[in-house]
Parts: sequence; C-alpha cells; structure tokens
Amino acid sequence: MHKIGKQTICFDNPPTILEAASIVGPKEADGPMAKYFDKCLDDEFWGEKSWEKAESKIIRETVNLVVAKSGISNTDIDYCFAGDLLNQCISSDFGLRDTNVPFFGVFGACSTFAESMCLGSVFVEGGAANNVICATSSHFCSAEKQFRFPLELGNQRPQTSQWTVTGSGAVILSKNGDGPYITNITPGKIVDMGIKDANNMGAAMAPAALDTLVTHLQDTGRKPSYYDAIITGDLGHIGKDILSEMIQTKGYNINGNYNDCGVLIFYL
Amino acid sequence: MHKIGKQTICFDNPPTILEAASIVGPKEADGPMAKYFDKCLDDEFWGEKSWEKAESKIIRETVNLVVAKSGISNTDIDYCFAGDLLNQCISSDFGLRDTNVPFFGVFGACSTFAESMCLGSVFVEGGAANNVICATSSHFCSAEKQFRFPLELGNQRPQTSQWTVTGSGAVILSKNGDGPYITNITPGKIVDMGIKDANNMGAAMAPAALDTLVTHLQDTGRKPSYYDAIITGDLGHIGKDILSEMIQTKGYNINGNYNDCGVLIFYL
Repeated sequence: MHKIGKQTICFDNPPTILEAASIVGPKEADGPMAKYFDKCLDDEFWGEKSWEKAESKIIRETVNLVVAKSGISNTDIDYCFAGDLLNQCISSDFGLRDTNVPFFGVFGACSTFAESMCLGSVFVEGGAANNVICATSSHFCSAEKQFRFPLELGNQRPQTSQWTVTGSGAVILSKNGDGPYITNITPGKIVDMGIKDANNMGAAMAPAALDTLVTHLQDTGRKPSYYDAIITGDLGHIGKDILSEMIQTKGYNINGNYNDCGVLIFYL
Repeated sequence: MHKIGKQTICFDNPPTILEAASIVGPKEADGPMAKYFDKCLDDEFWGEKSWEKAESKIIRETVNLVVAKSGISNTDIDYCFAGDLLNQCISSDFGLRDTNVPFFGVFGACSTFAESMCLGSVFVEGGAANNVICATSSHFCSAEKQFRFPLELGNQRPQTSQWTVTGSGAVILSKNGDGPYITNITPGKIVDMGIKDANNMGAAMAPAALDTLVTHLQDTGRKPSYYDAIITGDLGHIGKDILSEMIQTKGYNINGNYNDCGVLIFYL
C-alpha cells in the first residue's frame, strides 16, 4: 500500500469483502431495504431484558452469521475490529467476548463501521492478517438513552432528529477473493463547526463528510461521476441536503449518484 | 510484516518510537516516576471549569508537546490514533479537534494506549504512513464519575480499588529512526472471568493480561527472561499479584522482571 495526496491510502493488493451479514429491527424491516437484510426482528428486545442486552445479542448473532455464511472457521479469523455507540463499547465487548478472536475496540460514532473497515483492510493488505471481521451495532432505544432522553420520558422529537438504526452489520475482509475490493481509503479529520444540537446530528456531521469526500476526490484526482454510488453513513435528510449543497461551493456536483444510509433505510 | 504463531505480528522493518511526551497530575507528581514526566500539574483542573475539559486540555497539550519535541511539522503527521475512558472518547475528540490530522478513535480501556500503538505501527510498517501520533488520556476525577461515583458524594474507596492516572501520554511512531523499535505486537482477546466488582478492576483485567502474555511467549518461542522488563498497563497491586501467581500455573516465572504501571507510578 502507499499514500496518495494528502490523506488517502491506495492498496496495491486490494482486500476483498469476502462476506457480509446484517440483522435489523422492526422499523428497518418496514423500510425499502428490507429484502437485503439477512434477518429482520419482530421486536426491539429479541427476548432480552434490556435494550443494551438486545444490542449485544444482535451484534453477536450478526458476527456468527457472517462467519457461517463465509464458510471459513472462526479459528481462521485473525482479528476483529468492532465498536458501537454506547459507553465503553459495551454492546461489542459483551456481544463478542465469546468469539475468542483478538479484538480491537473502535469508536467513530456513525463512522465506526467505515473506520473498522479502514483498519481491517490495512491489516490484511499489510500482511498482518488473512481474514478479519469488521462489525458494528446500534440500537434506537439504547442510543436515545445514551445521547438524548430515555424513551420512557415520552419526549417529543424535533423534525431534525435522526432515527438511529436498530441493527448490526458485519463483514469479513480477506487477502484473497474475487471482490468487491477495497481499493482506497481516506480517513477523515475531526471537523467541528460548532453545531451543539443533539437533535440535529446531520448538520453536525455534514462538514466532516464534506471534508473527507472533497479530500478523497482531490487525492485520487477523480470526479464524482467516476463512482456508481457515493454513500454517507447517516446524515439523514437534512445532513444529506447540507452536504449536497456545500459540495457545490467546492466545485463538485454529487446530485446524480449520492445517497445516505439513513435516508435509504427508512424512506427512499 | 508477517504473522507468527496464533496472534502475534512480527515487523520486518520495525517502526521506531521517534519521540514521547507526557503530562500528569499532582498525585502522579508525588510518585517515584515524577522526574520522567515532561510536565507535572499543580491541580486537577489546570484552569478549566470541569474535569473533562481539563482532561481534554491535558491530551491536547501532550500531543502538541510530542510534536514540538520531535522537530517535525504537524503536516508531516499522517494519522492520529487516540482514545480515552469517557463516553464517545470526548476528551480525545475535543482535545485533538484542532490538530487537523486524520483521526482514528480507539477504545480499549486500560489497553487504549497499547492498542493505538499496535494500530499505528501496522500503518507505518505497511506503508500507509511515515509518521503517526498515538495518544491517550485519563483523569482520576472524570473516571471516578464515569465508572464509580462522583467524587462529591464522598464515597469510601475499598482497598482493592485502583487509582486512575490523571495524565496523558503520546508518542510519534516513524518509518525511519534509531529506535527504540516496535518489533512484535500480540493483540489480546476479550477475557471475562466474571469479576463484576467495579472496585476491583485488577482482578477483572488480570486474566486477559495473562492470556495475552502467555500467547506472546508461545508465539515468539521466548522465555520471560528474554526481556529486560515486562510491564502491564494498570493492574495495580492486586492484579499484579494475581498475574504473577497465575502465570506460574502456565509454567512461567515473571517475578524477576515484571512490574505494573499503576504500581510504578504511585508507589514502587
């Protein structure tokens, strides 16, 4: 691998995404992406006594599922990179403590999954691993308690507030495979424009997404049209519109091929 | 780099620890290691209004210091790996938001600093970076609030409870340099033996330290006597004794060259 431009890593032998798995909650199952998830749950608890325990179960079962689907053994997984939104990454730690795979805890909020895939692909391409798991989870109910108000309070939600996904995604990255490949990564900077409204996270996160995307395009010398799809993690409707508008001031137009996960999962 | 044994990565071109810096609080300044720290603070607040803001300032100034000591420019730092003990790693995020260096958030509790150095050295040796910063912070007062009780409550502390360091450490890892070198890393697994006492974290963490250390010795084929020093992150007196005793059941004796950071910093 080698670095190009300001902050992009280019892989000479791109790691392959060997397998992927996802389990989601009931609201996600009502959305337009439902058919792409491996499993949709009927309720937010999945038989557990707390939201946090449910979240742990969701990430555990998602990781078990991705390993089962891949056909390789747990003992062939070299390292696991995982994190979530809760204190001390407890849903990942508790959910994955029985995997017996060396563990790297990651915290990047909405970028945790992308961050874990960045780290995992550097390990695989660098020769430190043949197979790694990258996983993350979130849960609407545990996230509301963590970041805003416990649901029992019955607070009203402003229209700018996003809906945290209840679910987990996991992939196995491998040295050998037929793709899809991870060819470049552009790790982002902390960009804080001073948005302090916990009910408007899209506006808070959009400037960082803008900075990373523009840097990626500059580093690679590509135009947005090079890509079939440009996807952000979870800016929601408002953050998505802010990013689309702000990037035009930088001379790029992404309206034709840009979308956002939060928008895709819940609406379309 | 290549993998040896079960979970150890061996570097063919070992990254060098180019520079290190540390800033600590008043209790650490009273301990036997005081002369090795770059700066010792007179109070836990350092002019800030909250412990969390003080912790952010400590990590920010420590990172600024390590860059200044190294003589290289901020723009020559490719990536930063950092984390801490607080929700959403806020002391690192807020402390380092003005560095303008691409950021990987890490959560490993007491292992955060070792984890960030693992990740950083894989990036450097793999060719993804020439220089990276690895940093972490903790603060006794913010940690007590986070994990046990706010200090204002005046709770008694059992004799098994550890004392979280108020301070920050940062290193710059580089592709080129005269050492000290990072030659091998053995990322650990999650090992939970069921200790649930938040006032006895040494006992909770010792089994994971044991597993990682034994795996490292097995993977490398070395005996403990190969090392000038074997150091654990912060098991404290009780955890240190547990590890020393348990490793004897695995056929190793580390009494001659083993010590623990928490024991070293506060007592000797």
